[in-house]
Amino acid sequence: MLEAAGVAVFALTGALVAARKGMDPFGFILLSTVTGVGGGTLRDLLLGRGVFWVQDPFDVILCALVALACWALAYRRPGMLDGWGGKRLLIWADAAGMALFAVIGTQKALAVGAPNPSAIAFGAITAAFGGIIRDILAGDRPMVLWSRDFYVTAAATGATVTAALAHFDVNPTVVMLGGIAAGFGLRAGSILFGWSFPSLPGSGPDKA
Amino acid sequence: MLEAAGVAVFALTGALVAARKGMDPFGFILLSTVTGVGGGTLRDLLLGRGVFWVQDPFDVILCALVALACWALAYRRPGMLDGWGGKRLLIWADAAGMALFAVIGTQKALAVGAPNPSAIAFGAITAAFGGIIRDILAGDRPMVLWSRDFYVTAAATGATVTAALAHFDVNPTVVMLGGIAAGFGLRAGSILFGWSFPSLPGSGPDKA
Amino acid sequence: MLEAAGVAVFALTGALVAARKGMDPFGFILLSTVTGVGGGTLRDLLLGRGVFWVQDPFDVILCALVALACWALAYRRPGMLDGWGGKRLLIWADAAGMALFAVIGTQKALAVGAPNPSAIAFGAITAAFGGIIRDILAGDRPMVLWSRDFYVTAAATGATVTAALAHFDVNPTVVMLGGIAAGFGLRAGSILFGWSFPSLPGSGPDKA
Repeated sequence: MLEAAGVAVFALTGALVAARKGMDPFGFILLSTVTGVGGGTLRDLLLGRGVFWVQDPFDVILCALVALACWALAYRRPGMLDGWGGKRLLIWADAAGMALFAVIGTQKALAVGAPNPSAIAFGAITAAFGGIIRDILAGDRPMVLWSRDFYVTAAATGATVTAALAHFDVNPTVVMLGGIAAGFGLRAGSILFGWSFPSLPGSGPDKA
Repeated sequence: MLEAAGVAVFALTGALVAARKGMDPFGFILLSTVTGVGGGTLRDLLLGRGVFWVQDPFDVILCALVALACWALAYRRPGMLDGWGGKRLLIWADAAGMALFAVIGTQKALAVGAPNPSAIAFGAITAAFGGIIRDILAGDRPMVLWSRDFYVTAAATGATVTAALAHFDVNPTVVMLGGIAAGFGLRAGSILFGWSFPSLPGSGPDKA
Repeated sequence: MLEAAGVAVFALTGALVAARKGMDPFGFILLSTVTGVGGGTLRDLLLGRGVFWVQDPFDVILCALVALACWALAYRRPGMLDGWGGKRLLIWADAAGMALFAVIGTQKALAVGAPNPSAIAFGAITAAFGGIIRDILAGDRPMVLWSRDFYVTAAATGATVTAALAHFDVNPTVVMLGGIAAGFGLRAGSILFGWSFPSLPGSGPDKA
């Protein structure tokens, strides 16, 4: 259930990028699906588990439906998804998906007995890679690495809180809520209030 | 046999891109090999099977030979592979590889018991990813996502026809030919006659 | 031990790129970690082995420490890591990591019974992919494919020497040193003396 929510919001960010680029319906579907299931696919490959969507295609179908709904909307109401409102929706849906995947990735790694540092790396990497793959396929610089504000930081924090709470055998719902709150809260604060690390001296905000 | 044909034509597209970029012989080999075996490698990883070329390197050697032949040709006959003729060859070899891999990917997924929607996603993803990896390594925008004409659409159609024919227990040769005809036909029609979905309103053909 | 050395020098190259781009500390950590363990991760996935850092996170922690040390240095001594000295350090650390990974990748593939051509492809691919992933994530053109000098060539040579020496049952230390000397020597000669294949006619050094 939680995984499906994460998949759906990341699929939405893929469709929003496809709308901005003017892709065709199957371009929407490909970008939505790769973004939605990409992080979890990488996680399952690294853990040596069967990839979650191969035997149960529910999440792939979900991504395709999100993509088609967005394409129809972009076609009927031009500008709605790629204007300023679409950009804000993209940033917030991406933040929600990142927070969810950081928690789920950490939990799945702990469940197969990975030690804490690996589990935290897992949470951070799987939370970050859906968006990284999306941006690279779309020909953009990965938002994850280029935004000045907290992104990997937020994902790693959510993963760390998840691992810490799980260590103390807290109620699973609390573990989940705590991890999501930490990751999403840090990212939200960064988007709204500009929280960030001090810049490296001599590097402008947009140095290539 | 069919797989080797798909590998060879995709390897050819990798070599043509390497020629356009003026790479050295081992650059040709790397780009050819990654393009030729990339889609099938991803497919085998996702299916949790052993990767097809690890124990039997025939396809890797084939890619290297295609690459070296193209490098020699590019060196002896400058302009032959990166002019207009090379560009047309690239587009058509890519179309053939895409149609072949869509069918093979779908069949391999069905063979391990994946449900139809997963198998179709497999066909489309493995057909598209060889070219995507090639274009990203070469520093180009993925042709798959950026061309206005049918690409993912053609791959998904070929995969769907394959899954449908397989469902009705048709003769395997017919399944294969039907899938290839559907995928290649749609792509060819699109290249020759400009078949495509209606553009999203407000998005030019080359909007970044 | 040798693997950890390769991971550390590749992690260093990731951190140097992060310094040049002015990333934040967790951007350093992500880029260092992905570069340091990326090639080996791909190798283990392709071989169908468990990924080396999942159960034993030593190398991930090593990458994070390298990243944080570089960030602190970049913060306290502006310009030190992204000036001319940093660029030279990047090129040489990358050369060392490439030579090490070419040998290790070939040996691990031989150890699971892969035939020689596959093992050589393994050595070359795993040596090249850490740097390729780093450059793509950082929004640069992959140094591997774009530098005029030997890179994939050096990696493939190191892998070939490793496979040849292993074939004749030479002492393992000699196999290792021979492979490293071949790969690193060819790359070093290319950096210092401009060794390269003849350019394709009509292609400038920087043709996009």
